[in-house]
Amino acid sequence: MAGNAKAEGGIGEAWEKVKGMPKSIMEKVMNICVMTKEIAQDDPRKVIHSLKVGLSISLVSLFYFYQPLYENFGLSAMWAVMTVVVVFEFTVGATLGKGLNRTLATLTAGALGVGAHYLASLAGETAEPILIGFFVFLQAAIVSFIRFFPKMKARYDYGLLIFILTFSLISVSGFRDDEVLEMAHKRLSTIVIGGTACVMISIFVCPVWAGEELHYSIALNLDNLAHSLQEFINKHFKASEEGDSNKDNKSFMEGYKSVLNSKSSEDSLANFARWEPGHGKFKFRHPWDQYLKIGALSRQCAYRIEALINGHLNTPHIQGSSTASSEIVGTIEEACIEMSGESSKALKELGLSIKNMMSLPSSNNHISESKAASKRLKALLQSSLKEQDTDLLSLIPAATAASLLIDIVDCVQEIADSVNNLAALADFEEGDKSPKPPSSQSQALHCECAEPVPKIDSIV
Amino acid sequence: MAGNAKAEGGIGEAWEKVKGMPKSIMEKVMNICVMTKEIAQDDPRKVIHSLKVGLSISLVSLFYFYQPLYENFGLSAMWAVMTVVVVFEFTVGATLGKGLNRTLATLTAGALGVGAHYLASLAGETAEPILIGFFVFLQAAIVSFIRFFPKMKARYDYGLLIFILTFSLISVSGFRDDEVLEMAHKRLSTIVIGGTACVMISIFVCPVWAGEELHYSIALNLDNLAHSLQEFINKHFKASEEGDSNKDNKSFMEGYKSVLNSKSSEDSLANFARWEPGHGKFKFRHPWDQYLKIGALSRQCAYRIEALINGHLNTPHIQGSSTASSEIVGTIEEACIEMSGESSKALKELGLSIKNMMSLPSSNNHISESKAASKRLKALLQSSLKEQDTDLLSLIPAATAASLLIDIVDCVQEIADSVNNLAALADFEEGDKSPKPPSSQSQALHCECAEPVPKIDSIV
Repeated sequence: MAGNAKAEGGIGEAWEKVKGMPKSIMEKVMNICVMTKEIAQDDPRKVIHSLKVGLSISLVSLFYFYQPLYENFGLSAMWAVMTVVVVFEFTVGATLGKGLNRTLATLTAGALGVGAHYLASLAGETAEPILIGFFVFLQAAIVSFIRFFPKMKARYDYGLLIFILTFSLISVSGFRDDEVLEMAHKRLSTIVIGGTACVMISIFVCPVWAGEELHYSIALNLDNLAHSLQEFINKHFKASEEGDSNKDNKSFMEGYKSVLNSKSSEDSLANFARWEPGHGKFKFRHPWDQYLKIGALSRQCAYRIEALINGHLNTPHIQGSSTASSEIVGTIEEACIEMSGESSKALKELGLSIKNMMSLPSSNNHISESKAASKRLKALLQSSLKEQDTDLLSLIPAATAASLLIDIVDCVQEIADSVNNLAALADFEEGDKSPKPPSSQSQALHCECAEPVPKIDSIV
Repeated sequence: MAGNAKAEGGIGEAWEKVKGMPKSIMEKVMNICVMTKEIAQDDPRKVIHSLKVGLSISLVSLFYFYQPLYENFGLSAMWAVMTVVVVFEFTVGATLGKGLNRTLATLTAGALGVGAHYLASLAGETAEPILIGFFVFLQAAIVSFIRFFPKMKARYDYGLLIFILTFSLISVSGFRDDEVLEMAHKRLSTIVIGGTACVMISIFVCPVWAGEELHYSIALNLDNLAHSLQEFINKHFKASEEGDSNKDNKSFMEGYKSVLNSKSSEDSLANFARWEPGHGKFKFRHPWDQYLKIGALSRQCAYRIEALINGHLNTPHIQGSSTASSEIVGTIEEACIEMSGESSKALKELGLSIKNMMSLPSSNNHISESKAASKRLKALLQSSLKEQDTDLLSLIPAATAASLLIDIVDCVQEIADSVNNLAALADFEEGDKSPKPPSSQSQALHCECAEPVPKIDSIV
């Protein structure tokens, strides 16, 4: 009986597994659907990009379908299709950079390949393959090494790859096919056609500009830092007063995390942006390097915020202790609230200033307010604390937070200088010069918390 | 006379410019030579890689030169050359990943492309190009969208690209060439041959393993953090005592900077490493994810060190002021020196432990020493400071440094836990279990300063 029951149990388990299999597959399919929907909703331009790729490949396929075109190019039409598949990238800059790289590399390597072919053919039938092999080896080794040069890697890596490819193909094919010049010419013209199709569709059908991406992501980063600072203060200093822990706003507090590792994406966006022609508010030689400088300073600021938020400050005793020194802690905390509040506002204004390409002098007011707060803090500490019986240990968390916030104030000053520099270089418009009255500032703060700049989010 | 002199001056200037031109070209050439030499000396494997690329392309060119081989493949031999150029990467993992992606994508897309061709040809002559165009559009759009899925992008991006390429080529060419099956077969076999040649040369001729790169770069990062901490203490706390500002060691102090932005390179190395077969001390399923965890914790630690080194602590008043509270500052500084010294030693040992794949229990001793120091500091502050007349302002820098160092001690503890986890997962050997006596520890500290672990540097 027991054995029977066991066997039944085993069968039951197996049956459950079999029944579970379609379920787990269904779950996976559902997961994929959900992810697809999320990606599409998060950035509809990705859907448009996919359709654009399909469109351009179908267009270039006409070379095969339409008899007169096919007669001109024959099988070389394949290169046009290949070019579209390989060159079409998400942003205009990346597409343009790859297209230009591919075209120029094909041109120069094709010319050199034809030259190598003729040189080798002069040497006689036995020596020809040896000479061609030597040329191919030499150029492949040299160009592969050049790809390690940091500056070449950043901008011309793809071109160098295509150089090796074209030189090898042309010079080696020449050994079997004497019409090497015609081959080089066909390869070049089909690549130019494919590349042009890509670039045209990329520019004229819902373009995604790398420069714009960089612009808005730098603005969004400053905004994220502002939110993190504000939420830090809300959580650690104000929560106990308001009796509200603000758990919903955790995501805002973690906004700075996306800034920490932003370097590589900013670098590549700036590289792409340099290929782009002028568009909208961006001229051809827009100062993209200045964006990278602001990005680097934002990361510096983010490191401080990380130390502030994730440090051991993150313990309850920052909210004041009940010892004799709680009054001092209160004084420090007040200064902290002011410093970070003003820094946060300054960062928010700087982000807005970049986003709208408009100088907002009010950010300077916030910075001088935060600097004044840090000076007041120093003066207060020096004057009033000597008489008191202080418990230093309970002061350390607040003192550390104050110290980090003073660093953050300095950082924000540097960011503001960089943004002003950018404003001068890129001819930002002059914004509203009249500083807001202090009463409306504190009101603005509340609005900011309630409505977390949806505009930047929806654009980037 | 004056006009004459002016004209002469103009001519002289122009002549200077002309004379300067070859000079500036010469200078540029010299710069390139110097850079070439630097790159080659810095990592001779880059030279070897370039030669390997040249070798494999020359080898695959034999398809053209050797008559019997050429008869088999004809012009399709071109795909083998292309595959080598495109697939050959610096590390084995990247080459293997690209080769497998390319082969598998060609296989599936080729099969589907042949299927699409037959399906379309059933529909009659008029409908055929329309149907093929529709198929090409559909697959290109869908696969382009799949490339946005983060997981697919990380590992299969290249395969998806080649899928679009092959499907388009096979199904579109089929419209003109009825031997579509043979074409697909030739394309697949030449790609397999080219890919195999790459992978073989990449593995058997001086291989560069991505896994090994990741392994040593994680170890080097820990070592860099250790040096930065040690140099921070040497400069800020010990310099005044020794009367020596240690300017030569600035580069060590900045070692942590390379850790700050290490995320993207570590991520891609881990992705490549997953493709690699077992080699040396690394098995096929080596816990590469664990390395990424250690890397993330190292960055957390680096953020703290950045706040410590680049903060406004970087001012002379950290070296003690002449007020009444200098004694307290001295007490805090002593604890700081011990905490960071022990943390630095622990990080160094953890780095060595990873590098040699050997558990070194002595790192635990250093961690407990540093924790004990932080506890002593707290106790000292609580007990002895109440009686004294303290100038809080002069204490803040030292207190902040202490606070950040306490965070760093926690960070090092987490790193140690992760390394222990890695040791368990990857079966590290058991190292020397006997802890060193305290007297030799302080001696070891001096040796470390004199000889900054050259071994890891020369390997990575």
